[in-house]
Amino acid sequence: MELKNDLLIRAAKGEQVERTPVWVMRQAGRVLPEYRATRARAGSFIHLVRTPELACEVTLQPVDILGVDAAIIFSDILVIPEALGLPYEMDEGKGPRFAEVIRTAQDVSRLSTTEIPLKLDYVSKAIQLTKTELNGRVPLIGFAGAPFTIFCYMVEGQGSKEFSKARRMLRENPILAHSLLSKISEATIEYLKMQITAGANLIQLFDSWAGVLGPDLYKEFALPYIKQIFNSIPEVPRTIFAKGAWFASEWFAESELETIGFDWTVTPQQARAWSGNKTVQGNLDPSALYGSFEDIKKSTKEMLQNFGTQKHIANLGHGVYPDIHPDNLKCFIDTIKNNQTNQI
Amino acid sequence: MELKNDLLIRAAKGEQVERTPVWVMRQAGRVLPEYRATRARAGSFIHLVRTPELACEVTLQPVDILGVDAAIIFSDILVIPEALGLPYEMDEGKGPRFAEVIRTAQDVSRLSTTEIPLKLDYVSKAIQLTKTELNGRVPLIGFAGAPFTIFCYMVEGQGSKEFSKARRMLRENPILAHSLLSKISEATIEYLKMQITAGANLIQLFDSWAGVLGPDLYKEFALPYIKQIFNSIPEVPRTIFAKGAWFASEWFAESELETIGFDWTVTPQQARAWSGNKTVQGNLDPSALYGSFEDIKKSTKEMLQNFGTQKHIANLGHGVYPDIHPDNLKCFIDTIKNNQTNQI
Repeated sequence: MELKNDLLIRAAKGEQVERTPVWVMRQAGRVLPEYRATRARAGSFIHLVRTPELACEVTLQPVDILGVDAAIIFSDILVIPEALGLPYEMDEGKGPRFAEVIRTAQDVSRLSTTEIPLKLDYVSKAIQLTKTELNGRVPLIGFAGAPFTIFCYMVEGQGSKEFSKARRMLRENPILAHSLLSKISEATIEYLKMQITAGANLIQLFDSWAGVLGPDLYKEFALPYIKQIFNSIPEVPRTIFAKGAWFASEWFAESELETIGFDWTVTPQQARAWSGNKTVQGNLDPSALYGSFEDIKKSTKEMLQNFGTQKHIANLGHGVYPDIHPDNLKCFIDTIKNNQTNQI
Repeated sequence: MELKNDLLIRAAKGEQVERTPVWVMRQAGRVLPEYRATRARAGSFIHLVRTPELACEVTLQPVDILGVDAAIIFSDILVIPEALGLPYEMDEGKGPRFAEVIRTAQDVSRLSTTEIPLKLDYVSKAIQLTKTELNGRVPLIGFAGAPFTIFCYMVEGQGSKEFSKARRMLRENPILAHSLLSKISEATIEYLKMQITAGANLIQLFDSWAGVLGPDLYKEFALPYIKQIFNSIPEVPRTIFAKGAWFASEWFAESELETIGFDWTVTPQQARAWSGNKTVQGNLDPSALYGSFEDIKKSTKEMLQNFGTQKHIANLGHGVYPDIHPDNLKCFIDTIKNNQTNQI
């Protein structure tokens, strides 16, 4: 199936584009009333994730309603711990919670990396369904959590401001930490290969908790696993989004990947300076969408100008907040699609 | 009262020191069993804060038990909202919670900036008591929250990962946000002047939530108020600790203040490069104290070497975690005090 709109793929590969492509982290989510309706029908978040027809439905919504240049498969980064044998529940409004956590070598040895694609077959089905429905309109992004971020949840058992329990394991028992990170990486590679086989056109790794590590620990416990994963999937363009890890940008620039995502604490000028010749993704402050249409247009145009017309994938600097009005999000997207100075 | 140990003050002023001074953020706190005992006697956190004899007692504990080169008055940054007329409660294990929050101009106009020193007289008394008990052994640090961090709590009503409600106000109603920030600053100036009169030898502003703002918003809504406060208290050395705001370091370097604190995501080399000629404070990863004595000594010595022997105040890159063993914290402190390469 040839893509009718392949702006995202060309921008990721560093090829010439007519205009900057745009998609939005969490575009398939609570910001859309249509999502909330499907979510209500599904009964639970986890049921929504596990039902290919429903996952497909919410994946397509932002393409139809917002007009973004890419779909991203609706799923959850925590399907990996679940497939490894550590199930979780999603407390509404509170986030994920694991009944059991990883503390010992025995806990790690009980995790099973076999048959990951079989266990996560519902994601493969959702991707295939979505590809059929998209019919080449836009590319489909596949994704996974980066190993350190998954590790954080498996050790801490829930969200946390600083994940000090997870970091404690890095310090007290680095061997154990590496054994867990290795298993997560192994499973993630199988999972992403499956996503690519099913039809994902680009892969993004989300390292949501990267910022709780300083540079030394990031280099030891996060970066090698990201590289290992990306080196295993050279078939598609690869994007890293490591929130709060501005300090790792130059290491990413030297790695085998196509695109570096930035959060909103980094200026476009810094992002360019730290990214070598790579494509950059981002990075408007999500809170900018609380502003007036006029303010949104102004800050979006400034961002476009600062990044330049090539090797840039426009996005927010983090997921869109659920209480943003969809019209404000659409204003951001339309400003990028219509920007005059953005045309060659 | 002349100080017997004035290493901290001399280092802050950029004067020559025989060895690097050390203190630890949250040194008076749950890491010490002696603190937990006093806290239990006090009945509640807020009662502990408001009772000068008890606040003095826990302020002295780390000086006696850990041998740090400075005491920091035991208090809470949220006494400022309370003095302005917005009281809070401290839910054990959950953090602060405000029954009412600031939403409108009427809410702001109800806040009263009069008689701040009278309302916070218990802090003045705690400082005076502590100075008497210290008897010049080490300097006493006074502190307050930076205005944007206080603003976050007053608008959001509780802790948050990203303070999107607080940031929403910056975008939707910048005039209202500035009026609230101005009142907070005004009260903070009165409060810090009172602390200095009572005997505080150095003032630190904690901008704990700085990192949720990108550089543009930080420059507009955070930096000007920090400057206003510091410009009002030239009598003592002034330290800013803006967690996550690595991007603001160069602005701090150009400001009227003595010391810039860094969290652990910044390398000592970057901290030096971004701080001009100022003294720097920090910045060992607090999770390093989960390691063995050997590991703690190694990373502490590395930190000392990277910062150099002058214009450095040793500290962690954030508050010490409550589940760190006091012996591990003492190992960090003793390594700094005994470091051979650290002597002139």
